[in-house]
Amino acid sequence: MNAEESVELEQLMFVEEPMDGDEPRVHPAWLPPEAFRSLGARRVLLHGEGLLVDTVLNEVSRACARYGGRVWHSPSWDVDVDLVLALRDADELPNPSVEAARAAGEAALVELGDGGPLGDEGFVLARAGDVTAVLADAPAGLLYGLFHVVRLCAAAFDPARPPERHRPALRRRMLNHWDNVAVHPVMGQVERGYAGGSIFWRDGRPRGDLARVREYGRLLASCGVNAISVNNVNVARTEALLLTERLGDVAEIADALRPYGIRVHLSVSFAAPVLLGGLSTADPLDEAVRAWWAATTRRVYDRIPDFGGYLVKADSEGQPGPFTYGRDHADGANLLAEALAPHGGVVHWRAFVYNHHQDWRDRSTDRARAAYDHFAPLDGRFRTNVVVQVKFGPVDFQTREPVSPVLAAMPATRLAVELQVTQEYTGQQRHVCHLGPWWSEVLGFAPWGPDGRTIADVVTGESASGGGMVAVANVGDDLFWTGHPLAQANLYTFGRLAWDPRRDPTAILDEWITLTFPPSATADAELVRRTLHEIMDDSWRTYERYTAPLGVGFMVNPGDHYGPGVDGYEYTRWGTYHFADRDGVGVDRSLASGTGFADQYPPYWAQVYESPETCPDELLLFFHHVPYGHVLHSGSTVIQHIYDTHFAGVDEVTAMRRKWQTLTGMIDPSVYERVAERLDEQVRCATEWRDQINTYFFRKSGVPDERGRVIY
Amino acid sequence: MNAEESVELEQLMFVEEPMDGDEPRVHPAWLPPEAFRSLGARRVLLHGEGLLVDTVLNEVSRACARYGGRVWHSPSWDVDVDLVLALRDADELPNPSVEAARAAGEAALVELGDGGPLGDEGFVLARAGDVTAVLADAPAGLLYGLFHVVRLCAAAFDPARPPERHRPALRRRMLNHWDNVAVHPVMGQVERGYAGGSIFWRDGRPRGDLARVREYGRLLASCGVNAISVNNVNVARTEALLLTERLGDVAEIADALRPYGIRVHLSVSFAAPVLLGGLSTADPLDEAVRAWWAATTRRVYDRIPDFGGYLVKADSEGQPGPFTYGRDHADGANLLAEALAPHGGVVHWRAFVYNHHQDWRDRSTDRARAAYDHFAPLDGRFRTNVVVQVKFGPVDFQTREPVSPVLAAMPATRLAVELQVTQEYTGQQRHVCHLGPWWSEVLGFAPWGPDGRTIADVVTGESASGGGMVAVANVGDDLFWTGHPLAQANLYTFGRLAWDPRRDPTAILDEWITLTFPPSATADAELVRRTLHEIMDDSWRTYERYTAPLGVGFMVNPGDHYGPGVDGYEYTRWGTYHFADRDGVGVDRSLASGTGFADQYPPYWAQVYESPETCPDELLLFFHHVPYGHVLHSGSTVIQHIYDTHFAGVDEVTAMRRKWQTLTGMIDPSVYERVAERLDEQVRCATEWRDQINTYFFRKSGVPDERGRVIY
Repeated sequence: MNAEESVELEQLMFVEEPMDGDEPRVHPAWLPPEAFRSLGARRVLLHGEGLLVDTVLNEVSRACARYGGRVWHSPSWDVDVDLVLALRDADELPNPSVEAARAAGEAALVELGDGGPLGDEGFVLARAGDVTAVLADAPAGLLYGLFHVVRLCAAAFDPARPPERHRPALRRRMLNHWDNVAVHPVMGQVERGYAGGSIFWRDGRPRGDLARVREYGRLLASCGVNAISVNNVNVARTEALLLTERLGDVAEIADALRPYGIRVHLSVSFAAPVLLGGLSTADPLDEAVRAWWAATTRRVYDRIPDFGGYLVKADSEGQPGPFTYGRDHADGANLLAEALAPHGGVVHWRAFVYNHHQDWRDRSTDRARAAYDHFAPLDGRFRTNVVVQVKFGPVDFQTREPVSPVLAAMPATRLAVELQVTQEYTGQQRHVCHLGPWWSEVLGFAPWGPDGRTIADVVTGESASGGGMVAVANVGDDLFWTGHPLAQANLYTFGRLAWDPRRDPTAILDEWITLTFPPSATADAELVRRTLHEIMDDSWRTYERYTAPLGVGFMVNPGDHYGPGVDGYEYTRWGTYHFADRDGVGVDRSLASGTGFADQYPPYWAQVYESPETCPDELLLFFHHVPYGHVLHSGSTVIQHIYDTHFAGVDEVTAMRRKWQTLTGMIDPSVYERVAERLDEQVRCATEWRDQINTYFFRKSGVPDERGRVIY
Repeated sequence: MNAEESVELEQLMFVEEPMDGDEPRVHPAWLPPEAFRSLGARRVLLHGEGLLVDTVLNEVSRACARYGGRVWHSPSWDVDVDLVLALRDADELPNPSVEAARAAGEAALVELGDGGPLGDEGFVLARAGDVTAVLADAPAGLLYGLFHVVRLCAAAFDPARPPERHRPALRRRMLNHWDNVAVHPVMGQVERGYAGGSIFWRDGRPRGDLARVREYGRLLASCGVNAISVNNVNVARTEALLLTERLGDVAEIADALRPYGIRVHLSVSFAAPVLLGGLSTADPLDEAVRAWWAATTRRVYDRIPDFGGYLVKADSEGQPGPFTYGRDHADGANLLAEALAPHGGVVHWRAFVYNHHQDWRDRSTDRARAAYDHFAPLDGRFRTNVVVQVKFGPVDFQTREPVSPVLAAMPATRLAVELQVTQEYTGQQRHVCHLGPWWSEVLGFAPWGPDGRTIADVVTGESASGGGMVAVANVGDDLFWTGHPLAQANLYTFGRLAWDPRRDPTAILDEWITLTFPPSATADAELVRRTLHEIMDDSWRTYERYTAPLGVGFMVNPGDHYGPGVDGYEYTRWGTYHFADRDGVGVDRSLASGTGFADQYPPYWAQVYESPETCPDELLLFFHHVPYGHVLHSGSTVIQHIYDTHFAGVDEVTAMRRKWQTLTGMIDPSVYERVAERLDEQVRCATEWRDQINTYFFRKSGVPDERGRVIY
């Protein structure tokens, strides 16, 4: 068994080769020119000044040049227009269109107003006679208003359209790029990247394609994202230097993204004072350390005045942190917060902390408990410009986990929920897996019981003071940005949910489909739309069906996390076990007989999760070790459920592929082919999951499938 | 789960860092200066001429300079000596010592003679009055005779010592280096190398340390190895060039090894005519291809007149081969043999060919059958200068496998048996695992039944016409050559068994201990000797006890093959399964109900292996799927045997470590520390094996340990 076995490992990294010859045209994602057709045919008046107003002007000009419309920027004479985009406090002009629009907008604000201001990013849309008016208090609001008009298409100009007021529920809507500057010997250029290289970095240096970065910023702005971190939370030597001698590389990215209202954040090493500053300690209570962070941060803001702040993974999976100095996470986070405060910056401090040298023989330690055990006691100790960033589940971005109890345990702390747009455990952008429904379920979870506040409420906070939403990014230098063209929808959906976490994810998907696949001469747009919904709407649940059952999680190949490996993590130090034996399967996390994790929830859910009788089916094996014959609420036994869902999952993937094939000729051939290839792989891989999971549990349980299907 | 998980993967590659400052002194292995003490105190007369005679002269001179002896090279006057080393046919000199020695030697030859010649490598040792005489027909014989005298120490000069005649049973005693010239992205510098980098290559170029290569040659000559291949059987682009434009790099190695009687061979790509020659085909029956190989081989011999020949892995694990052209392995091998024949070279053609894209669901395909199915039908079709090189077992160098039936299936073919000195599946030179007893068992196996010929007979052949013994090498640029200092014994043992495959491996180990750990002021040599025997003699069986049970094999971590991974290969394409379920475990390879592999043996063993009642315990699960309650010949059940051997194995390793600790202060501290560290790791890893294997089978079988020990 030799080199080829290893080559296979390499192939799992799945790096797209650049095509021969010319740099390939980059796919426009959900902003193809045709999406601007309705806007571009209008007469548009733009009123206001500023960098982001210029961005709006560029967008409108480009659209009008293509589709025959016309644009004026603050003319001092009267013009007959269809659309006014105006800042409310811009200088008065003797222009009746602006005046009428402004009046209609102000009236709408009174009608819809909740007393709160529109804010930097909000806008109002109203009809004033034959004119559609978009009013905002600040340039970013105009930019978001413009993209709203694009999404509405003709509906934005419907005379009967009632007025609308839009403000983001969350102040910070952030993507974390786990991009490495230098190629990591094993993780490559992008850790958990499934779309080729980084759009920012290549082989230890900036990639040098700022046009691509700008294009990325435009996509993000159009779905509402307003912050990114530009390097991996695992900060290695080269990446640490971004804070100091390589700061210019970060400033270039910030300059490219600023016109789209996107602020840049940096992942930093807690050991930076030692690594970069030559100090002998990084102790957060040491005066020299505080001074070093203050001075270093000042230099960052000298160069990047709108710098967002720091992102830190500390005392986690080998990263340095305050534990080295006998300090806790509050001490550590507050150190950086103090340095950032004078400049308006924030620290995102990750709660993903656990013992990653666990002994699989030790059943008393439970990785699921770790974040709560570490962080809940610190509630109230974090400075106001600290955001504690909590992975949505207690383990690690699984296809199905309960919602992290940390999110209900720190009322006096600004909390952000961390999602994973990059599909590490959900098919790695080779599988269609639309994550909107899963994220909505998480955001809609009410930790204090059905009538209580939700995760969306927690991260929104009082008066938008919450920590917001953060997600690990899924783009790379791939032609389609995301490897799988349909994975673009996850990026879009994240942005739109971060703008309004209570929105219906299927409605968001519908927006994405409509923008991405506009009507064309060769396509039946309605058929395409319906087919894509059929393929994507339920695809996360399909993925769940053919992979790890009933919330048990982590039955994946170690290392790359793609494909089945039922015992792959069972005897490792990573704390992710299923304890399957000949009689049953699952982890007892009850208070009565298990690790007590269930008791980390507020009483309502603590009680529900405590008993296998009340625990929801989909989380049963996360909370309980039960016999294979245990009867679920669905009426099925655990073992028969495993068989049934795995057969069903593969059938559903096969159906997805068949449905996609009906779209031949209606889709850009390059998109069609890429999706078709990946659906082939999804069918192959889902079949592998089905057969390995079913065989594994049949060999263990000895229980035959009721329906006599083939198990190996 | 992030970078650190992967870093762990990297660490498994286990590359030794060079020490700071000076190049570390290389450990002398079994040739420390003290091993020459007895020789070096004598008066020695050397008679004869030639490159290898000069080598003998250097060895003797160095020893005498250190220990006060004296050496003469063919003096024309009379000298009073203790030892004469002489070529039989060298010019007569009026020297009574030589004459007396020659006479004694000739008399011994008559007394001991079997009618056969001494050959190029044989020698006779006899006493002539007060003189010990070593006579040989050729310089290599003198060199081997010299090392024999070194091994004998004072016993070589015992007046009562009867005469001895030595000839190697096997003409070719070969090591294959799986060393890459360029660092392979995953396999590194040495594929399956556990002793640092290559002694030949570094980062795509020759390593440039020819002194080290010469020292290696000296070690090999002293244990009897006379051929090596210098590059990996998986031939990548850079390595392919060794045959042509980089031939000079090979010639340098050949020059360095020639004084020790070692010939250099080269692993070549079957696709070389296309890769290097610019031809459109590598079809073995194509005239241009034949001409290309003939011309290329002629150029090789122009540069390296004693070049050994080619080693080929064809149509195996992705390597190119004759199948591409609809030809078979005989066609392929004969093509190269034809090119080599005029120059006296040989082709080693590996029989390690199987389908490495097997579907684990398909129980009709059996990797164990593959080599026989491919090669047995070709018997008689290979040219006489082809050696078909057969891995000792039908799968892949496992700790326990049956002996390959191919070795009994090709009477009209020259066969070599391939062993693995590098401990890929036997502890990777972090575990003490002395392989001599295992190899002896393989060599002593009588495929036609207890009274028939053995594997040793097969590879020896009629009049030494057999294919010989080959092994994958275990040295690297490590300070101790082999990572684990005690792994040197495996290299030594291979050489000595290749010289005489019927020798007792414990006696060989005793030689190695005596040479490597000579008496010193601080050591009780007898205690050291006894302790090392206690640690090493049974260490292979200990390793077997705590790893995969009863011949089932391959319960290792995929990729690196170190440490337990019971299901690691169970659902892969590599054809290595155990089929454990809740009722039983093992692979049915019987003719009656299984894959029929058992029937590939001659009738005696075919019958023995066919039934679980007659199959030897240690191979039971290789040949049969049996219930956990199946009673072994030992009287234990399969499941209880698993528990008992795994507990016993760890106890034995713990005892090994304890025994080693009794040697503190008696061993070179650097050797002591290195072994001590590795014994710690062996205890850790053996414990992991015990607990994972026991837990796995307890969870599956539900059968408790009779003795109530802890299983998790």
